[in-house]
Amino acid sequence: MKYTILFGARSYEHEISIVSAVVLKDILKERIQYFIFIDSKGDFYLIPQDKMNAKTFSTGGYEKYPKLQMTKGGFLQKSFLKEQFLGVEVMLNLIHGSEGEEGIISSLCEFYHIPYIGPRIEASVMSFSKELTKLYAQSRGVKMLPYHILDKQTRNIDSIPFEFPFIVKPLHLGSSIGIQIIRDKKEMNYNLDVAFEFDNKVLIEPFIGGIKEYNLAGCKVKKQGEEHWIFSMIEEPKKGELLDFNKKYLDFSRTEKTTQAEIDTKWTERMQMAFKALYHHCFEGALIRCDFFIHKDAIYLNEINPIPGSLAHYLFSDSFVSVLDALAQRLPIAHSPQVRYLFLSEIQYAKGK
Amino acid sequence: MKYTILFGARSYEHEISIVSAVVLKDILKERIQYFIFIDSKGDFYLIPQDKMNAKTFSTGGYEKYPKLQMTKGGFLQKSFLKEQFLGVEVMLNLIHGSEGEEGIISSLCEFYHIPYIGPRIEASVMSFSKELTKLYAQSRGVKMLPYHILDKQTRNIDSIPFEFPFIVKPLHLGSSIGIQIIRDKKEMNYNLDVAFEFDNKVLIEPFIGGIKEYNLAGCKVKKQGEEHWIFSMIEEPKKGELLDFNKKYLDFSRTEKTTQAEIDTKWTERMQMAFKALYHHCFEGALIRCDFFIHKDAIYLNEINPIPGSLAHYLFSDSFVSVLDALAQRLPIAHSPQVRYLFLSEIQYAKGK
Repeated sequence: MKYTILFGARSYEHEISIVSAVVLKDILKERIQYFIFIDSKGDFYLIPQDKMNAKTFSTGGYEKYPKLQMTKGGFLQKSFLKEQFLGVEVMLNLIHGSEGEEGIISSLCEFYHIPYIGPRIEASVMSFSKELTKLYAQSRGVKMLPYHILDKQTRNIDSIPFEFPFIVKPLHLGSSIGIQIIRDKKEMNYNLDVAFEFDNKVLIEPFIGGIKEYNLAGCKVKKQGEEHWIFSMIEEPKKGELLDFNKKYLDFSRTEKTTQAEIDTKWTERMQMAFKALYHHCFEGALIRCDFFIHKDAIYLNEINPIPGSLAHYLFSDSFVSVLDALAQRLPIAHSPQVRYLFLSEIQYAKGK
Repeated sequence: MKYTILFGARSYEHEISIVSAVVLKDILKERIQYFIFIDSKGDFYLIPQDKMNAKTFSTGGYEKYPKLQMTKGGFLQKSFLKEQFLGVEVMLNLIHGSEGEEGIISSLCEFYHIPYIGPRIEASVMSFSKELTKLYAQSRGVKMLPYHILDKQTRNIDSIPFEFPFIVKPLHLGSSIGIQIIRDKKEMNYNLDVAFEFDNKVLIEPFIGGIKEYNLAGCKVKKQGEEHWIFSMIEEPKKGELLDFNKKYLDFSRTEKTTQAEIDTKWTERMQMAFKALYHHCFEGALIRCDFFIHKDAIYLNEINPIPGSLAHYLFSDSFVSVLDALAQRLPIAHSPQVRYLFLSEIQYAKGK
């Protein structure tokens, strides 16, 4: 099984995606089929494996590599008077943020019949909007912190039902972009301005100091026709009060393995149960990371990362590639209705021709 | 303003989409730029306006027309040694069911920067899954009937909390496909089999005899920078107990206008209020039809049709084209983050090159 890594794209997390892809180069090595970069204009480029470094992108050097066009089953590479077809075995959607996580890349892969590891469209939408994640988790019986939505247009500050301090998050961004702690009324206007720079709606949550955070990655695969769950170790991410974009950015470039958090197996089991409830019948086909809080003897979902940084390989120790392989072997298949033109034939018949 | 009609695609409602497109040919006439058909294999074809009839499709005759490839801003038409670019002014997504309404067509238009009338990705997902519509409507303060989800795998019939009769609906299909009334235990197994033919999950609702149904279409536009709501008349659709696929199919080919339902203005206002609550900050860019029930002095949402049959033109009397024009002039614009490579440049700097 060979993997084609799709990365870049029009997103605030464009650079993070490049870093993720560079990290996976060293992890997947000869298991990589193609590196395909989407630039900020939405053009596809085939990047040679030995050119997968920061400079290629920051200098615009990628533009000298072959431009591609997406097509059924893969890509077309055009050159003078001929077209070459690059068939994709399995695509890894490594585009964090907007285009990757809001369902656009999933849709392209579905439309062009390219097998892919990544969230399907419904899963993308449910995890991309922080408001929809709240509704979704509730429907799956998983707790989240209380929240309040603020609209850029009305900006009705008096409606906020929480005491200071609270956290403000743009509704649709990942990687901690635009997330602010608001400690008092003085900070409010400026911090809201920052958050509204990124989105027309922001989500407000109470800020709970010293809350414990834990990350768990995993996926569901099939073995001999039976469902089988794969879970990573659980990590307690090292961080300050809030992981800001710069720190998180460095976090995406992690290459070393991590260590299992010191928590009771009771908590491990409860996190895995919550993970299963969230994943089942929605996230199939994706390797996701769920970030949980533990607070006052209860588990809360913080967020679902349907495309975690460098696919959270560091949580799987040495088994990462075999996890990908297991997942790639049983990807969800879209319903393919047969089109038979029964009605249109009837219409013609009724018209006498 | 000229409109390109995109229709067909891999969907149980493929034929309905063709009928819808044929109907709009007569309504939009010279305002149509291109008819672009997606066949069941996912290939694009440019159909001449005078060939827009049942026979072209049911006989496979469409295959002799030019094949297209989607690209930035429109389509490429290839012929011997040259490529012609067909720029699309505004696309009308007229693909009912799977690919059109689950977010794939929206994603293609977003990715290729083609302005389009139709639901955005989030709106597609929220209206395509009957379970998510329930969660969504609840979060917007709009009532729906109680429901229960049944899984094909477990098929736990004893868990159904309703008395007979009840209705079974495949979770992800429109146009009444696979919808069954189950009157007693005898009918149960066969009717569930039918519903599970179309989906791995079905939604069960109590069947309320003689419930009144009303359809309201509309959209939000901007006039001089101000939000402005456009509503159609309200229709009470003529039907038997349940509009089955055949009847609904004929319904899609409607060309004559309809008449306003005889209801109190109080109900009209309440339906418009519910419509606004559902549409705001989600369905912008689409002309949708909401189907409501009135039952015991309360309004219930039955479903949201983000791409109603022939765009529910018959509900707008003679204003249909001007409604489309108003909508087309202020389509939502996707956030386009600027990519500046600040972090990657820093990495290079830190590495001394």
